[in-house]
Amino acid sequence: MADSKKMVEQITSMEVDFAKWYTDVVLKAELVDYSSVKGCMIIRPYGYAIWELIQKQMDDMFKALGHENVYMPLFIPESLLQKEKDHVEGFAPEVAWVTHGGSEPLPERLCVRPTSETLFCEHYANTVHSYRDLPKLYNQWCSVVRWEKTTRPFLRTREFLWQEGHTVHATAEEAIEETERMLNVYADFCKNVLNMPVVKGRKTESDKFAGAVATYAIEALMHDGKALQAGTSHYFGDGFARAFDMTFTDKDNKLQYMHQTSWGTTTRLIGAIIMSHGDNNGLVLPPKVAPIQVAVIPIASHKPGVTEKAAEITERLQKRFRVKCDLSDNSAGWKFAEYEMKGVPLRLEIGPKDIENNQCVLVRRDNREKVFASLDNLEEDVEALLETVGLALYSKAARNMEEKTYRCTTMEEIKSVLADKGDGFVEAMWCGEESCEDEVKAQTGVGSRCIPFVQEHLSDVCVCCGKPAKHMVMWGNAY
Amino acid sequence: MADSKKMVEQITSMEVDFAKWYTDVVLKAELVDYSSVKGCMIIRPYGYAIWELIQKQMDDMFKALGHENVYMPLFIPESLLQKEKDHVEGFAPEVAWVTHGGSEPLPERLCVRPTSETLFCEHYANTVHSYRDLPKLYNQWCSVVRWEKTTRPFLRTREFLWQEGHTVHATAEEAIEETERMLNVYADFCKNVLNMPVVKGRKTESDKFAGAVATYAIEALMHDGKALQAGTSHYFGDGFARAFDMTFTDKDNKLQYMHQTSWGTTTRLIGAIIMSHGDNNGLVLPPKVAPIQVAVIPIASHKPGVTEKAAEITERLQKRFRVKCDLSDNSAGWKFAEYEMKGVPLRLEIGPKDIENNQCVLVRRDNREKVFASLDNLEEDVEALLETVGLALYSKAARNMEEKTYRCTTMEEIKSVLADKGDGFVEAMWCGEESCEDEVKAQTGVGSRCIPFVQEHLSDVCVCCGKPAKHMVMWGNAY
Repeated sequence: MADSKKMVEQITSMEVDFAKWYTDVVLKAELVDYSSVKGCMIIRPYGYAIWELIQKQMDDMFKALGHENVYMPLFIPESLLQKEKDHVEGFAPEVAWVTHGGSEPLPERLCVRPTSETLFCEHYANTVHSYRDLPKLYNQWCSVVRWEKTTRPFLRTREFLWQEGHTVHATAEEAIEETERMLNVYADFCKNVLNMPVVKGRKTESDKFAGAVATYAIEALMHDGKALQAGTSHYFGDGFARAFDMTFTDKDNKLQYMHQTSWGTTTRLIGAIIMSHGDNNGLVLPPKVAPIQVAVIPIASHKPGVTEKAAEITERLQKRFRVKCDLSDNSAGWKFAEYEMKGVPLRLEIGPKDIENNQCVLVRRDNREKVFASLDNLEEDVEALLETVGLALYSKAARNMEEKTYRCTTMEEIKSVLADKGDGFVEAMWCGEESCEDEVKAQTGVGSRCIPFVQEHLSDVCVCCGKPAKHMVMWGNAY
Repeated sequence: MADSKKMVEQITSMEVDFAKWYTDVVLKAELVDYSSVKGCMIIRPYGYAIWELIQKQMDDMFKALGHENVYMPLFIPESLLQKEKDHVEGFAPEVAWVTHGGSEPLPERLCVRPTSETLFCEHYANTVHSYRDLPKLYNQWCSVVRWEKTTRPFLRTREFLWQEGHTVHATAEEAIEETERMLNVYADFCKNVLNMPVVKGRKTESDKFAGAVATYAIEALMHDGKALQAGTSHYFGDGFARAFDMTFTDKDNKLQYMHQTSWGTTTRLIGAIIMSHGDNNGLVLPPKVAPIQVAVIPIASHKPGVTEKAAEITERLQKRFRVKCDLSDNSAGWKFAEYEMKGVPLRLEIGPKDIENNQCVLVRRDNREKVFASLDNLEEDVEALLETVGLALYSKAARNMEEKTYRCTTMEEIKSVLADKGDGFVEAMWCGEESCEDEVKAQTGVGSRCIPFVQEHLSDVCVCCGKPAKHMVMWGNAY
């Protein structure tokens, strides 16, 4: 067990330094690596396999709702980016500019897409003519670039992978419905696939996406009490449509502007998984996105028949699960620590005694609970246990969120709860004025995360100015 | 049928203007669209669905051979690109340069990756230490940028989608084996999935990838007799390893350089499909990459029960195939032309008479052959027919290649065969000197495509200089 201890010791404890713990986990679980490209990350096989599992399952949900994938150019001409005033103001300060092709200066600068609204707008303006062409429900999986100053793997990098949905509709109602539908898809995905509870809400005016009428978001709460925006869905009204001349002929043969949405999630979700479920032994992966769901580890593998039995069990289980059998000459203890670090939901141990008894040992990653399982109906036991692990991860994360959600009615209360308990979701009433939003941030340090869809009536008045309250806002520090 | 004729007439006949025919097909089958981003293309849902089917099936082949997917940064610092001399000379003239992040000039220019050898080299240098870490078999799916002057959708665009495999090995033998293995994977994929025959061969010295010891390629022949390079596989020896200090400790505890390969295929494959199988009615898609394999079209759909039966058949078939049922109020004739244009391998017609007889009509896209099929075992008939269509596409393309392959022993013969018959694969002997390669090109207009693995002995002497011949070379014009 010496090796095992050594490996575990390499991770900084999250209670000591949460940021360092995070970095230790992403590097030692071999999710990412740094390169000489400042602010960008290399996503290594184990990290990319998680992303592929996220992609596949989310893509299936999109397609089941009639969305189609497309691919738009990586570059946006400066003049195209500038067509919608708010949008360019929001993004221009953080884009990367291509100025030369080969040795020639370009006639017009091109930005590397930070998001593709402008390209989709131009395409829809060119290809949608009649109400019969609507709705168009497009999505693309790609990478985007935003020239961030401070970067951290998965959470904030100059380049990241994402999906961006862009849809156009004949009516505002349909577009709003789509905006809400996709937010719900994200929330369901977080719950059912990532085992991560989220709060659904609307962003305040000051926090909207550049060019949007309304921005909806899902907010998750990390171990350290900080919020993480896990997905956004925007309703654009016909603002972009007017700027890009996106019109169609309606049933009465009248020219109308299209109504538009966009929505996105990114490789941040992997950061959210790490900080929602991980512990001081490393990653803890939700079974549905775990590249390895079961690690099969032979015990006393020099004894006759053990290796063979481990291989046989692996072959059986591989028909239904993602399984890795580790027959390397590393010690069992080293292997235990290795697959704990990598967050594998179940460890299957099989040794001579187990073989005699026609059984094996299944150990859960999330709570280290051990059970003996008969080899006769192993598939059913593994399936049930993976399901149980997923539900347990969700419960634990939901409990963390509940325990770290603080309902406050005065500024003093906000300050004292943050001072006493540290970061979390602070719920407090708000009059709707931006000046009060700024004042709360200035006095308490926490910004508005969203106006939750599920509202509670905590008091009649704004926590800041004392005037009549319009909404309950969720405040907090965020990644 | 008026609509149908009109639509068909919109495509330029390939005999009249092959280039125009190609452009008509890619636009009218809605594979791509242009945008204001010069030299880049928008891949529309139907085109992207073909790419997704290519990706999925090729990715499965890679993974079955132990390859893992990763994601490297989009950008390469200028100094990193410059580390391998031949490589930078080959690529620097055609890269896009990022010079500004937001409003700040960058301390060092970044190129948008034209290919990622340099990034993989750096990563392998950092992460591989021992022979136990080898081989590393990585692949990535991404987009790359090369600042081409003349562009055509799928065939040559400033940005294109591709996969790039990058592997490192302990010995030269293993690396050469991998290089050949992956070329065979590509050739098998072209044959079995795209129904497209290819010639496997080695590139001449002058035509190698920048930095490679040897470049292998598969060459396909288009309808118009021009060659299309459909995939390449490179053996690097330890050239990059020396430039990037990529070393490992071998079993005898000695420091060794790694041996390296890379291999790639791109969205060009879609161009190859179009020009291998398409006809004057539009696309003809190989069944395995057809987004719609069966188009179900109700005949006389106003008659009672027809629409319901069409929907019922569709639901049945969708369990095994990619099926679209067109219940729109367009005429049957319009629908026939539409799905022919889109290259759907099978059309299923169902009308009142068919329902009475418990049958339907299946029409092949490739030769318009009609058969009646009983509804009782429709799945089996559809499956068999899709298989037949795939084989027929392959036979037809192989016949085209055979008919357009010309064996020549003199320069005059090359000139006259090209003058008489037009483009094709010209096979002729070569002494191995670059001067003769250049001379053949100068005199006949055709360049060397590859030195085929399967060699024929056409004569003892070089077709150009008359000195002893070393290889049979395949010459031709290429996309």
